[in-house]
Amino acid sequence: MLFDEKVYLHIPGPSPVPPQVQRAMARPMIGHRSGDFSKLVARLGEEAKKLFRTAGDVLTLTGSGTAGMEACVAGVVSPGDEVLVLVSGVFGERWAKIAQAYGAKVTRLDTRWGTPIDPHQVAVKLAENPRFKAVFATQNETSTTVQNDIAAIGAYVAKTEAVFVVDCVSSLGGADFRMDEWQVDLAVAGSQKCLMLPPGLALVAVSPKAWKAIEGTRSSRFYLDLVAYRDSLAKATTPYTPAVSLYFGLEAALALLFEEGLENSFRRHDLMKRMVRRAIRALGLSLLAEDAWASPTVTGVWAPEGLNPDDFRARIKKRYGVVLAGGQKDLTGKIFRIGHMGYTSPYDLLGVVAAVELGLKESGYPASFGTGVAAAQAELFDSLDVAAGKEG
Amino acid sequence: MLFDEKVYLHIPGPSPVPPQVQRAMARPMIGHRSGDFSKLVARLGEEAKKLFRTAGDVLTLTGSGTAGMEACVAGVVSPGDEVLVLVSGVFGERWAKIAQAYGAKVTRLDTRWGTPIDPHQVAVKLAENPRFKAVFATQNETSTTVQNDIAAIGAYVAKTEAVFVVDCVSSLGGADFRMDEWQVDLAVAGSQKCLMLPPGLALVAVSPKAWKAIEGTRSSRFYLDLVAYRDSLAKATTPYTPAVSLYFGLEAALALLFEEGLENSFRRHDLMKRMVRRAIRALGLSLLAEDAWASPTVTGVWAPEGLNPDDFRARIKKRYGVVLAGGQKDLTGKIFRIGHMGYTSPYDLLGVVAAVELGLKESGYPASFGTGVAAAQAELFDSLDVAAGKEG
Repeated sequence: MLFDEKVYLHIPGPSPVPPQVQRAMARPMIGHRSGDFSKLVARLGEEAKKLFRTAGDVLTLTGSGTAGMEACVAGVVSPGDEVLVLVSGVFGERWAKIAQAYGAKVTRLDTRWGTPIDPHQVAVKLAENPRFKAVFATQNETSTTVQNDIAAIGAYVAKTEAVFVVDCVSSLGGADFRMDEWQVDLAVAGSQKCLMLPPGLALVAVSPKAWKAIEGTRSSRFYLDLVAYRDSLAKATTPYTPAVSLYFGLEAALALLFEEGLENSFRRHDLMKRMVRRAIRALGLSLLAEDAWASPTVTGVWAPEGLNPDDFRARIKKRYGVVLAGGQKDLTGKIFRIGHMGYTSPYDLLGVVAAVELGLKESGYPASFGTGVAAAQAELFDSLDVAAGKEG
Repeated sequence: MLFDEKVYLHIPGPSPVPPQVQRAMARPMIGHRSGDFSKLVARLGEEAKKLFRTAGDVLTLTGSGTAGMEACVAGVVSPGDEVLVLVSGVFGERWAKIAQAYGAKVTRLDTRWGTPIDPHQVAVKLAENPRFKAVFATQNETSTTVQNDIAAIGAYVAKTEAVFVVDCVSSLGGADFRMDEWQVDLAVAGSQKCLMLPPGLALVAVSPKAWKAIEGTRSSRFYLDLVAYRDSLAKATTPYTPAVSLYFGLEAALALLFEEGLENSFRRHDLMKRMVRRAIRALGLSLLAEDAWASPTVTGVWAPEGLNPDDFRARIKKRYGVVLAGGQKDLTGKIFRIGHMGYTSPYDLLGVVAAVELGLKESGYPASFGTGVAAAQAELFDSLDVAAGKEG
């Protein structure tokens, strides 16, 4: 690589951080018990509701997405409780692991990796066992580049006593999510994905049904006790010392996101997904997930016969500074993944596809230069509605 | 544009500023008469000599490239002096204008725009008039995307009493320049081009022959009096208040440049030039300058019949954040220019070419998607020496 920091980050998080957010985070430190910080906490509490499309509470925890996930489990799982975990990849597995750590009896509904959870199968599981205290799902499973149908699953879970807990860590802000309309009870987002921040914050949205469950739960919890965050938020503060700079950054990031408009952000992510998929097909490679359930924030590609995807990734990182992700668990050494989330534009993907072509060629794969780029350009061009005379 | 600051700057300066330089410039302010600043001045004075490949003095002025040019003129032109100005574009014109402002009798050697100065014609002019006090040239004429042969011209000027003054504002660091070997007496560089800084500093290198001329010159000069800068530099300071942050940045930028290696930087700029030229040809467009004298830092392209290059540029800026330059003076409305200087990688040009293709298509020009990109990729790929088993 020519320059160490000239990096084009196309992994499923962390994603690139906008300069506006960097500048906000560089503000002089303030005390977290100051009036200024309280005002910020209050403002962010309201702004975050728009993000989740909820009238309920949105709590901000200083910790990773996993910390947010654990706060949900600790909130609704008492030792011995039965829970249903929908596993379509590594992050579904993580729900299961955390639930087990809290003493839950876990029933799993697994899918073949690369395919989504079938909502009807969830309904069957729920009918089989009315004792499920909670159902855990993943909206956007980055490990398998699959998006699950949270609205459809939510409709079934809402008919039961179970609390519906959704990991939208890698989708919130980049894909449609409607907490209240979809009857989600607990939702977790991470800062370092479509929210355009560095890692370090987890946002947890909580429905009234979830609060009721949380109040009746007997689990060992302290730092991740959502009740403490709720009670503090009511006083415009945090229970423990928060990552003050990341709060500054969150305010700047949400300003950018709302300036673009959530719907426009969803459209942008969808366009990036379509560009990459069309390019990959034009190059004769196979996609991990089908169009119908492909993630809007990350695309998985099967490595062609004879190509070591990790060597390939190392090569284009070194040559061009373009950073892609590899496969996890069973998919290790079999796929590569192209992230297109957060502060990323459709234009950025044109270069990424060109780098993929160069990397394939250098790896001995018979890639024709420009073929994938032309496909991505065509997808982008079609989105402009130039023919219709509209401004895209 | 999606995000106001997601801009891909491909104009002939300012060029993108590396994060290392941005961070250096964000350091807390220090006094410019402090010991710390003196040490910085002394270090930069030595480092800058490597940049110009000179054993002579290199002075740093707080001002634009034009301020540096004026300092040279004020240094060697007394009212009524005869000077020869080599004009291959807007910046050659600027030498003439400044010389006239200082009362010089200017003889011009003009070229057809898009072509370089013929060194033999310089020899003829010098033979015709032995009274020339100075000869003014431009190494890299961004307005016409032409590089002049400074070594060849220098060989002729060195045989005369005239001082050879060269504007290498837009080439130093990105194109070979050898102050001492090429017998250049005064050379001016700007911070915002291949030196990867924001605008605000001019570097002026001075030969012993130039110092002799400067000491005999009667011109009105104060802020731009090179003698004041030399005397201050000898004491590791500056005569007037310098742009302290830019000095911090200059140190970081030079560290990056020397880490890459000057020769590697020249090769990188040459590769970017070849990629863009091959892409433009593949798209069926015409280049402003011939290969033999094309600038390594900016490429001029004739707008095809029916394309308004300024509307075209406005469109791709708005759509993709890609900023190109237009034509100046006689070339206004006839060309567009693609900058590839400083903190820019060959990879960056792949996206730029893709954006040019999209912009052409949207403007109704029959551009075939991927055609130019494929040509640029092929040029880049060829440079990797993959076949030869070497690491590119």
